[in-house]
Amino acid sequence: MSLLIRNVMLNGMKRDIYVEGNIIEDIDERIKIRADKVIDGKNKAAIPGFVNAHTHAAMTLFRGYGDDMELHEWLQNKIWPAEAKLTEKDVYWGTKLACLEMIKSGTTTFNDQYWFMKGTARAVNEMGLRAVLAEAFIDLFQREMAEKSIRNTKRFVRFIDSMNNDRISAAIGPHAIYSVSKECLQWVREFSEKNNLLIHFHLSETNEENGICKRKYGKRPVEYLEEIGFLGDNLIAAHCVWLNKRDIKILSRYNVKIVHNPTSNMKLSVGGFFDYKGIRSEGLIVSLGTDGCASNNNLDMFEEMKFAAVAQKGFKNDPTIMSALETFKMATEYGAKTLGINAGKIEIGKLADIALIDLKRPEMLPMHNLVSNLVYSANGSCVDTLICNGEVLMENRKVEGEEEILEKAEDIAFNLISR
Amino acid sequence: MSLLIRNVMLNGMKRDIYVEGNIIEDIDERIKIRADKVIDGKNKAAIPGFVNAHTHAAMTLFRGYGDDMELHEWLQNKIWPAEAKLTEKDVYWGTKLACLEMIKSGTTTFNDQYWFMKGTARAVNEMGLRAVLAEAFIDLFQREMAEKSIRNTKRFVRFIDSMNNDRISAAIGPHAIYSVSKECLQWVREFSEKNNLLIHFHLSETNEENGICKRKYGKRPVEYLEEIGFLGDNLIAAHCVWLNKRDIKILSRYNVKIVHNPTSNMKLSVGGFFDYKGIRSEGLIVSLGTDGCASNNNLDMFEEMKFAAVAQKGFKNDPTIMSALETFKMATEYGAKTLGINAGKIEIGKLADIALIDLKRPEMLPMHNLVSNLVYSANGSCVDTLICNGEVLMENRKVEGEEEILEKAEDIAFNLISR
Repeated sequence: MSLLIRNVMLNGMKRDIYVEGNIIEDIDERIKIRADKVIDGKNKAAIPGFVNAHTHAAMTLFRGYGDDMELHEWLQNKIWPAEAKLTEKDVYWGTKLACLEMIKSGTTTFNDQYWFMKGTARAVNEMGLRAVLAEAFIDLFQREMAEKSIRNTKRFVRFIDSMNNDRISAAIGPHAIYSVSKECLQWVREFSEKNNLLIHFHLSETNEENGICKRKYGKRPVEYLEEIGFLGDNLIAAHCVWLNKRDIKILSRYNVKIVHNPTSNMKLSVGGFFDYKGIRSEGLIVSLGTDGCASNNNLDMFEEMKFAAVAQKGFKNDPTIMSALETFKMATEYGAKTLGINAGKIEIGKLADIALIDLKRPEMLPMHNLVSNLVYSANGSCVDTLICNGEVLMENRKVEGEEEILEKAEDIAFNLISR
Repeated sequence: MSLLIRNVMLNGMKRDIYVEGNIIEDIDERIKIRADKVIDGKNKAAIPGFVNAHTHAAMTLFRGYGDDMELHEWLQNKIWPAEAKLTEKDVYWGTKLACLEMIKSGTTTFNDQYWFMKGTARAVNEMGLRAVLAEAFIDLFQREMAEKSIRNTKRFVRFIDSMNNDRISAAIGPHAIYSVSKECLQWVREFSEKNNLLIHFHLSETNEENGICKRKYGKRPVEYLEEIGFLGDNLIAAHCVWLNKRDIKILSRYNVKIVHNPTSNMKLSVGGFFDYKGIRSEGLIVSLGTDGCASNNNLDMFEEMKFAAVAQKGFKNDPTIMSALETFKMATEYGAKTLGINAGKIEIGKLADIALIDLKRPEMLPMHNLVSNLVYSANGSCVDTLICNGEVLMENRKVEGEEEILEKAEDIAFNLISR
C-alpha cells in the first residue's frame, strides 16, 4: 500500500509526501510516482499526529458523570462504585469511543493505563491507532491483590505479544505510591527490565500523596523511589506537580520521562502547578497528556496544548514561558520520544503518523504563524484527515463505523451507571 | 418571517420552538403551525446563543502575530506599530472574520471596544449578529486627544443611531484609568446618563495598573472611580483581576457589571487570578469574555467557559467552585443581563438568539449531563445551526459568503503588518 499527499503545507513550504507501507519514504517539492492512493493537500497543513502520553481511554464512559465535586466524594460516590461494575466489554466500547474522538482530533498514539485492558487492545487493534497499554497494577499492600496484579500483568503482556500488532505494545501500570507496595514496585522494575517494557506511573500528583509517603516511608516520593531502585529511563511519570528542585535533579539523573496533565490538574484542584521551567532546565523530556475523560473531560490535544501554555504563563507569571513551538513539540516529538516510537516528526524514514489540518477555517486565519494558530486557536475539529501507520483512518472528517460506535458506547455508559 | 424548530432537545426534553419575527413565540411538545422555515432538531440541543461580553473583534487580524512575549515588548514592537496603521477598512474585514468565527462557534452577541468602530458596525450589520459597540476613548492626559475622543464618541453614537438597526447599539469606551483623565471619565459618566448608554471599561487588569493609580491619585482604582463619580450600574468592567474585598463591596453598591477574561489574563500573565467566589458573594453579575484575538487567540466561548471553570478550580484549589451550570449562565444569561438584552435564555417572549448543538459527536457522548459536556468537553465546532434575532445565520455549519471573508481578511492582515 502506498500513499501520496500532494501539495500540502509542511514547515512553511508546499510539499509532496510519499508513504510506502507505514513509513514516510519521500518528501519533496514534486514527487513523480504512482501511488495506490492520492490525497489532495491543497489548503491543508501536514503535522505529526499527536501523542497523548497519559490517559485512561475507556473513561469516556464517565464523561460528565460527576463534575465540580470534592475529589474524595467524587471517587467514593461516583467513580469507584461505577468502576466496580466494569467489564471488558465496557472497556472495549469506551475505548472505541475514545479512539474515535482521538482520530477526529488528530491523535495517532496514546499511552493508556486502566482495567480490563484486553478490551482496550481489541478496540485499538480495530481502530487503527498506535498505543502503549498497561493493565492497572494495584495491591493496596495486600498479598492476595499483589499476586493477582502480578498474574494480570503477566497475562496481559502475553496477550499483547500474541496480538503481534506492531502498533500496540504492552507496558506495566503500577498505579501510584499509595496504592502499590514496595515489594511490588521492585517486582515491576525487575519485570520491566527483563521484558524490555515501559512503566506507566502516577507521581506526586498531589501534596497529600507526598504527605502519605513521608509519613509511611519518612521520605518524599522521588527519594523513596530512588531508594528502592524503582527509577529508570523506562519510567513514564504522569502529573509530577509536587516536585521540589531535589526531586527534579534525582529524576533527571535517571532520565525519567515526565508527562504534564494541565487540565486534569486544574480541574481536580491538585494545588500548585507543574514547574515546567525547573523540570526542563534539568534536561528532562516533558510530554503532554489529557488524563481520562472523568477529569478533563475530552481527549483533544489541541485544547491540552493551549491549557498547558496558557496556564503555565498564568501560574508562573511569565508570558514568555512554554512557547507555542515548545508546547507543540511536547504534544508530538517529545511524546514519541517518551514512548520510544519512531514518530512525532514528519521526516523521511519516520512512521507515517500524519494529521492534515484544514487551513480554511476562521480560527486558522490569518496564518501569521501556523504553530501559534495550532496551539492557541485551533481545536480538534480543524483536523481533516488522519493517517496512522500509513493507513488513512479519517478523510474529510469521516471515520468508518462512526455511528455504531456513538450508539453502542452511549448505551454501554448508561447501562454501566444504572447496573 | 417565521421559523419552526422541530423536535429539539431543550432542558432535557424534546420540544418544538416557534419563532415569529425576532421573538420566541411558543415552546411546546408539538406545535401545529405553518412556518416559513422548518428546521429539523433531531439529535440536536437548543441553547441560548453565547454573549461574548468583552472583546476587540477586529484584532482577529493579529491572531498569532506575536505570542509568548513580555507584555511591554509585545505592545511596543508588535501591536502598537501595527495598530498605528489601521484603517476603517481593516477593522471592517477583521470584524467580518470575527463575526464569521463567532457564528461558527455559537455566539450571537458581543460587546466590543476598538478603533474605527464604524467599520465594526458595518460588518455586524451585514453579518447579522447582535453587538454593543464602543469607540475606544483615550486621552493620555492631553487636551487635544481628549477633545478628539469626545468628538469621535459623539460622532460614533450618532452614526449608530442613524443605522437604526435594533441588533446594534452604541456604548462609550473609555479605555482604562492609566489612559483616560479624570475629566474625561467624568464627561463619559455624564454623557452616558444623558444618552442612556453603557460604558465599556478595563479595570484592575494588572497589579501595575493598581500601582499607577495609587501613585497618581493616592487610591486604588475602584476607590478613585467612586470618588470621581464614575461608578454606576451601566458600567461594564472587564478583567477585574486585582480587586480586594473592599473594592468588591464598593462595586457591588453601584451594581457594576463584571466581565471575567480567564484565557487572556493567563496568557498575558497578569498575576493572580479572578476572585470569582468573593465577587459572586457580593451579588455582582459576572459574565464571560474572550478579549481580543491578540491575547487569546480565538473567540470560542466554549473554550472560554472551560478555561474559566477549570482555571478557577486550579487557582483557588477548590474543585467545587464555578460549576458547569454557573459557568454556562455566565456565558449566556448573565452576559445578556450585563448588556441589558432580552436574551440569554430560551423562553417564550425572549429574543430568538439560539444555537443548535450537534449531539452526535464523540466529545458530546455519553450525555450524562449536557451542560457538563458543553462546558468541559465541547468546542465551537459542535454548533450546527445559529439563529440570531430570528434569522438563520448558519445551517449545517455553512455561512453565506464564508470563502470571500477568509480570503479578504487574510489579505488585509498581511497587508497591514507589511504596510
